[in-house]
Amino acid sequence: MKEKVTTAVIGLGGRGLSLLKAVILGMEDVEVLGVCDLYEDRAQAGYEAVLEARGTKPVCSLDYRDILAIPNLDSVVIATSWETHIEIAIAAMKQGIRPGVEVGPAYSIDQLWQLVHTSEETGVPCMMLENCCYGRDEMMLMNMIEQGVFGQLVHLEGGYRHDLREEIGFGRENRHYRNANYKNRNCENYPTHELGPICQMLGIHHGNRLLKLNSVASTSRGLNAYLQKEKGPDYDQAFYPFAQGDVVTTVITCAHGETITLTLDTTLPRYYSRGLLVQGTKAMYSEDNHSVFIDGVHSEADGFDWQKHWNNALEMREKYEHPVWTQFLNDGVRGGHGGMDYLVDRAFFDSVKNETKPPIDVYDMAAWMSIGVLSEESIAKGGAPVYIPDFTNGKWVETR
Amino acid sequence: MKEKVTTAVIGLGGRGLSLLKAVILGMEDVEVLGVCDLYEDRAQAGYEAVLEARGTKPVCSLDYRDILAIPNLDSVVIATSWETHIEIAIAAMKQGIRPGVEVGPAYSIDQLWQLVHTSEETGVPCMMLENCCYGRDEMMLMNMIEQGVFGQLVHLEGGYRHDLREEIGFGRENRHYRNANYKNRNCENYPTHELGPICQMLGIHHGNRLLKLNSVASTSRGLNAYLQKEKGPDYDQAFYPFAQGDVVTTVITCAHGETITLTLDTTLPRYYSRGLLVQGTKAMYSEDNHSVFIDGVHSEADGFDWQKHWNNALEMREKYEHPVWTQFLNDGVRGGHGGMDYLVDRAFFDSVKNETKPPIDVYDMAAWMSIGVLSEESIAKGGAPVYIPDFTNGKWVETR
Repeated sequence: MKEKVTTAVIGLGGRGLSLLKAVILGMEDVEVLGVCDLYEDRAQAGYEAVLEARGTKPVCSLDYRDILAIPNLDSVVIATSWETHIEIAIAAMKQGIRPGVEVGPAYSIDQLWQLVHTSEETGVPCMMLENCCYGRDEMMLMNMIEQGVFGQLVHLEGGYRHDLREEIGFGRENRHYRNANYKNRNCENYPTHELGPICQMLGIHHGNRLLKLNSVASTSRGLNAYLQKEKGPDYDQAFYPFAQGDVVTTVITCAHGETITLTLDTTLPRYYSRGLLVQGTKAMYSEDNHSVFIDGVHSEADGFDWQKHWNNALEMREKYEHPVWTQFLNDGVRGGHGGMDYLVDRAFFDSVKNETKPPIDVYDMAAWMSIGVLSEESIAKGGAPVYIPDFTNGKWVETR
Repeated sequence: MKEKVTTAVIGLGGRGLSLLKAVILGMEDVEVLGVCDLYEDRAQAGYEAVLEARGTKPVCSLDYRDILAIPNLDSVVIATSWETHIEIAIAAMKQGIRPGVEVGPAYSIDQLWQLVHTSEETGVPCMMLENCCYGRDEMMLMNMIEQGVFGQLVHLEGGYRHDLREEIGFGRENRHYRNANYKNRNCENYPTHELGPICQMLGIHHGNRLLKLNSVASTSRGLNAYLQKEKGPDYDQAFYPFAQGDVVTTVITCAHGETITLTLDTTLPRYYSRGLLVQGTKAMYSEDNHSVFIDGVHSEADGFDWQKHWNNALEMREKYEHPVWTQFLNDGVRGGHGGMDYLVDRAFFDSVKNETKPPIDVYDMAAWMSIGVLSEESIAKGGAPVYIPDFTNGKWVETR
């Protein structure tokens, strides 16, 4: 086990810079040797953040290949535009550098096979940094599922339901890749919240797998209405025919018949929700009113008034808080998104330090990202069933 | 306009008897001339309810044809098993009797065309008694939509999410048709809650229509787990391979690209919810935390804490209560299911009395019921897109 781990951050937009400043630079055992972005001001902001926090001067470049050439670089955090994640992850593994990759969708199945093959051939692990796998409720639920509270799981739902109209609508001004994606592509473009934690709950790649999906997109009205309101009818995207539907509903069927409904919902006015719903033969959980319903404890037949139980998931923490979170609360919660960012990056750097397999591996990453391109195919075919490849080539049938 | 309207109730299981006692017999302008059920004790219970409330002796029969032969019968309420609704409705129309039909799914597209043709050829209207179209929140939302609060609608969700394990699992003992349906059939078997009100919100058959659907069913585990727990492993249905999946997710696409996600969820432990979600370009509503989010009034960017707004739909009533409900509250809410049963039956009998078109007509009924059989087809095809027939033969393209 190493005492320290070296890393670099490629991609210093909103996400990368906040990970660097709020999470990575707070970890004393992580040395930041490089920062990189296509935009000079962003790269410079990363450079200054490192200099200020550590007094060291990282390599600063607009070209990720300069970063991957840094001697003794153990790992790299990739927080670039969606469409460049895999290319950079593959290049890193070829240099023996372990990539931690921010979330996003795939654009082809071929690129995912390349990712998997590269990891297998080089022996370099690749981890997706899906922070929601470390959410407090998600981890409590995993604990409850492990303890049998939910019985056998049957149906789960999740989504990314977040009003991003400003970020997307003004994506050119913001230099955000979502604008070009929404102009041109129609798919479940952000599947891994909440698919990541759901896959862990369902034992995906541990005796279960994602088998097929059906995906349907609504029409696109949200961005036009928003831009017309904000900028008037003369703004050049006010009536642009965005390819991306406002709401994409994807139903995934697992090898054992469980279903997962994913919803992408980012261009209409709404409050934030990952819409997590967990239903088993003995219990259910609903994020939207933050409640747990346990068979035999709660009962509709007894004149049960559900509204009185809203937010009762809070009470479940006494009994079912995940040990990782108990420790985290004890040590003091750090980092962005309520602590999830810290935990996922910590798990990544620990796996690099200990030279162990990461908790979210290249097969998970490939399967989760594949929903992007496979949902695009299904939508294009009117919601037709689309088969999800087995990126493990059969390794999943053994329960590990 | 008639002063009184005559009716009979066919089907006196739990639903029919409660409609008779709690709703119909409370309407002074409705005379009940007949009661009918396949089971003598049920028919007898209906007979006694009429005798007690009115002092009159209705025709009491086990054969619905005896009921349809009653002289001067204006209307009939059909609350039989799902699989007999349409046959009886058609027979009634052929006798010039207006049917009010309880909710359920269709079993073939042909039977729906027969229903439509019979109504068109006889000139006798047929109404589906979808009580949820008269729910207090549903009607408030229709009012808000009408007033433009939601902007253009884009995506709606609804479902029938209700733990019916006892009713279904012990359906033979209870003489409930759901047991046989769940043993043998896999589909969205109860689509019209919440599809009915959603179609009214979306202007279906008034310049819009249901165009296609994709439907996916989960595995079936809930009833087995329940029966094993309640009756032990030796009970004959404890391990019966029920055809019906526990959760069926159906995504309907409308002619203008709006999507509707329907969920059937009746065999797992849970609280009751019709899961209504309404999303437009200007606002959203969510039943599961009973809230309304209005663009410009509420904002996530302002550090909005959504939980503080749970149940704020209550406050919206001051401004947006539907006039029908304002009147109903003023007169005193009556009948089952929080008043919805009264309102839908009242609308039915008013249309009979006034010899007007019913508010839910034979085309609505055919389209809504078609989801039962079309979801069965889609599930059997792995969620493939299935076209929804235009039962109006083009009448829908005119906005009425």
